Amino acid sequence: MMGTGHLAALQDLLGSEQFLHASADLEPLLTDHRQLYHGRALGVALPRHAADVAAILRYCNKAGVGVVPQGGNTSYCGGATPDESGRQLLISLRRMNRVRDVDAANSTLVAEAGCLLATVQLAAAAVDRFFPLSLGSEGSCQIGGNLSTNAGGTSVLRYGMMRDLVLGLEVVLPDGRLLSSLAALRKDNTGYDIKSLFLGAEGTLGIITAACLKLFPAQRSAATAIVAIRDPAAALTLLAALRAASGDAVSSFELMPRSGVLLALQYIDGIRDPFDIAYHWYVLVELRSSRLDDPLDELLQRTLAEAQGDAGVADAVLAQNDRQRKDFWRLRELMPEAQRRHGYSLKHDISVPVSRLPEFLVRASDWVAANVPDSLLIAYGHAGDGNLHFNICGVAGAAPALQAQADSIKRVIHDLVRDFGGSFSAEHGIGRLKVAELERYAAPVELELMRSIKKTLDPNGIMNPGKLLAG
Amino acid sequence: MMGTGHLAALQDLLGSEQFLHASADLEPLLTDHRQLYHGRALGVALPRHAADVAAILRYCNKAGVGVVPQGGNTSYCGGATPDESGRQLLISLRRMNRVRDVDAANSTLVAEAGCLLATVQLAAAAVDRFFPLSLGSEGSCQIGGNLSTNAGGTSVLRYGMMRDLVLGLEVVLPDGRLLSSLAALRKDNTGYDIKSLFLGAEGTLGIITAACLKLFPAQRSAATAIVAIRDPAAALTLLAALRAASGDAVSSFELMPRSGVLLALQYIDGIRDPFDIAYHWYVLVELRSSRLDDPLDELLQRTLAEAQGDAGVADAVLAQNDRQRKDFWRLRELMPEAQRRHGYSLKHDISVPVSRLPEFLVRASDWVAANVPDSLLIAYGHAGDGNLHFNICGVAGAAPALQAQADSIKRVIHDLVRDFGGSFSAEHGIGRLKVAELERYAAPVELELMRSIKKTLDPNGIMNPGKLLAG
Repeated sequence: MMGTGHLAALQDLLGSEQFLHASADLEPLLTDHRQLYHGRALGVALPRHAADVAAILRYCNKAGVGVVPQGGNTSYCGGATPDESGRQLLISLRRMNRVRDVDAANSTLVAEAGCLLATVQLAAAAVDRFFPLSLGSEGSCQIGGNLSTNAGGTSVLRYGMMRDLVLGLEVVLPDGRLLSSLAALRKDNTGYDIKSLFLGAEGTLGIITAACLKLFPAQRSAATAIVAIRDPAAALTLLAALRAASGDAVSSFELMPRSGVLLALQYIDGIRDPFDIAYHWYVLVELRSSRLDDPLDELLQRTLAEAQGDAGVADAVLAQNDRQRKDFWRLRELMPEAQRRHGYSLKHDISVPVSRLPEFLVRASDWVAANVPDSLLIAYGHAGDGNLHFNICGVAGAAPALQAQADSIKRVIHDLVRDFGGSFSAEHGIGRLKVAELERYAAPVELELMRSIKKTLDPNGIMNPGKLLAG
Repeated sequence: MMGTGHLAALQDLLGSEQFLHASADLEPLLTDHRQLYHGRALGVALPRHAADVAAILRYCNKAGVGVVPQGGNTSYCGGATPDESGRQLLISLRRMNRVRDVDAANSTLVAEAGCLLATVQLAAAAVDRFFPLSLGSEGSCQIGGNLSTNAGGTSVLRYGMMRDLVLGLEVVLPDGRLLSSLAALRKDNTGYDIKSLFLGAEGTLGIITAACLKLFPAQRSAATAIVAIRDPAAALTLLAALRAASGDAVSSFELMPRSGVLLALQYIDGIRDPFDIAYHWYVLVELRSSRLDDPLDELLQRTLAEAQGDAGVADAVLAQNDRQRKDFWRLRELMPEAQRRHGYSLKHDISVPVSRLPEFLVRASDWVAANVPDSLLIAYGHAGDGNLHFNICGVAGAAPALQAQADSIKRVIHDLVRDFGGSFSAEHGIGRLKVAELERYAAPVELELMRSIKKTLDPNGIMNPGKLLAG
């Protein structure tokens, strides 16, 4: 049997220490974080070095074994889960978890793919520097996954996506060749930007084994507020005013609807309504800077005061200390958990140009109100980047009806996003979940180019088959 | 004759309005800015729309006519000059010079390739926004060239290279297909980052016809100083202190040696020595911020005071007004002109990790002192990015000897750069000038990948032949 042949060959190649296939070892790796998929696998390889990864890929490329790279297994799109065939090999990068180098004077750090995001943040902090990528799962997600999915999170407004934080990469190509391009250079115009192809490729073009990352001055001042606001249009006016007034120090600008706050109040212990009266919309604003004693609170207060009244700011509470700052963030960050406890919800990770967000929200909300009875719309998220998690929750008992409608609702929302010049996958990527969406919404020329590049780099199609591009 | 056949066909296709071949029209486009190359061409096409570019490329791709895209013709590496065969077609983008859209609320702008960089800066300023790319040639270079060469300049430290300022691109592929990917989105994780391939590809993979660019809040405060400093190591300590103290508002940090200042004093009218006594090294520092009345002068003064004495700051002059600021910048920006007037100089556009810059300078200067008699070393530039223009000028009468040694000197300097983990082309690109250097210094795997990508996108090899990659 083919499967047994590969199993024996892989055991032989890797030894029992680097290759596990007992079900106790495998089982936790076969289901994705959202439990959308359950796969099977030949086993899991646990390389310690790029050379180990190269040896594995050389074998798989010759033998035609599909490989699925896995980091912290926190994909929202099933990007790291093997298919149901049992013929794919999982490659977990978790043992490649060294921080190879920290260079404070160059403001760079070289981390292996299996480093937790939190480990990288701490390594930067240890030399008085700051690594800005920040996500809900930072304690369990790995840098390799962040790189391969071009992760976003809560600091994109100020620091960009993961792609913007990378200077160099070490990548094992599908045929086992090692591309070692870890140069710690801010400026290097020597040919095509090859590394960008692997950032966001979700492991379909090769396996990233390490990266040289940009660091920033350590942050020393912060100001955080929850602002009650008339509507999303007023939020945008406030955003522009705050960016200008603060010297572009707005690191987060998160929009939240009343519906989301109510759900958090209902399901999460210790959440308090920041205001005595109810408002339709809220923004969680955070300013951060590396200046010591930077009067960010004062700047924030002054800008909010100027925006009161006609400009649409109704009320605001500033965090008086770190504890209160954490409380404000808990309200925002536990919004997905509150939805989970409430029951089934239909999620969309969409973006539109920031300037078109208010109009999009009106159009999309009206459609949901008219066409999805017994539903609760929770459209929240990184409004400063034009990125919303547009989630429709079923009210008690209505979940099955909502689930039955899911595909047709998704079609309407994503079509509307396209009409607004937006994206049906702002930060979570394609994985397995959105392969058909990419086929539908990407321009034909773009898809053709993606397929040519896939074929050029992975002619045998062994890299994360069935993810990102349809086979 | 082949040439005549294509000439007639192109005249037929484009008409006399869009195709010029009289020598008065052609001649200025056939020599590069540095007068390193003089080429010939079938003629120059002057498209007004992406569809025109598509029609031209469709013809050339079928007929096997090499095309050379040209913007403002300011390449330092002969990247936009046709070869000597007379069989290539120049395509000037200068008539595609519309700013198609400015969206202040989204902080984006869509510009066509033929827009002058200065036009884009002004269009941003008109809506109270800031486009940060800034170069000596901004009044004549075009956005298409900036995109195709991934231009750097004096604001890279704070805002990154051109690649970091792009959200979307419109590109005509070699076979005439149009890739229209001008989405004005901050977050869009839908497949491979195709657009990055064209940024820095120097027109060898397709022709960029428009781009969606990121804007920033308008700048409202600035502080500028010329600092006399003990040595480059002290400059780095100062850089880290300033980045932290200012909230990462250091927009320029330019290192200048005494030799460069002396040359500017000698050759440029109206340049004054900022200090009464001579120092070995200087840094031009600029802080910029969008905060109104931001006390940047105070911050700068305080940080400089703390760095006096042991930390290596010897003296400093702060600009008291915009006129003085401009004078400081004249000293820096006319340094290349002073070198030109002095005579022949052997230039290197190199980068190393910022942390290794001082050691590199010691090693490289020692070598020049020992091995290149009668020379004047002027190593100056964007030290905050690790990027130096390492130029060796011949003293009177010694130019021919220096010129004769040029290749062997370049070899030693570039080998040393490689040993320091650096790049032999930090911001100017490869063009025609550095094709052999890329062959020598790029890792074989990287070169193989570049060639595969070139072959995939431009199978007939019509795009800017002989530039970037050897044929």
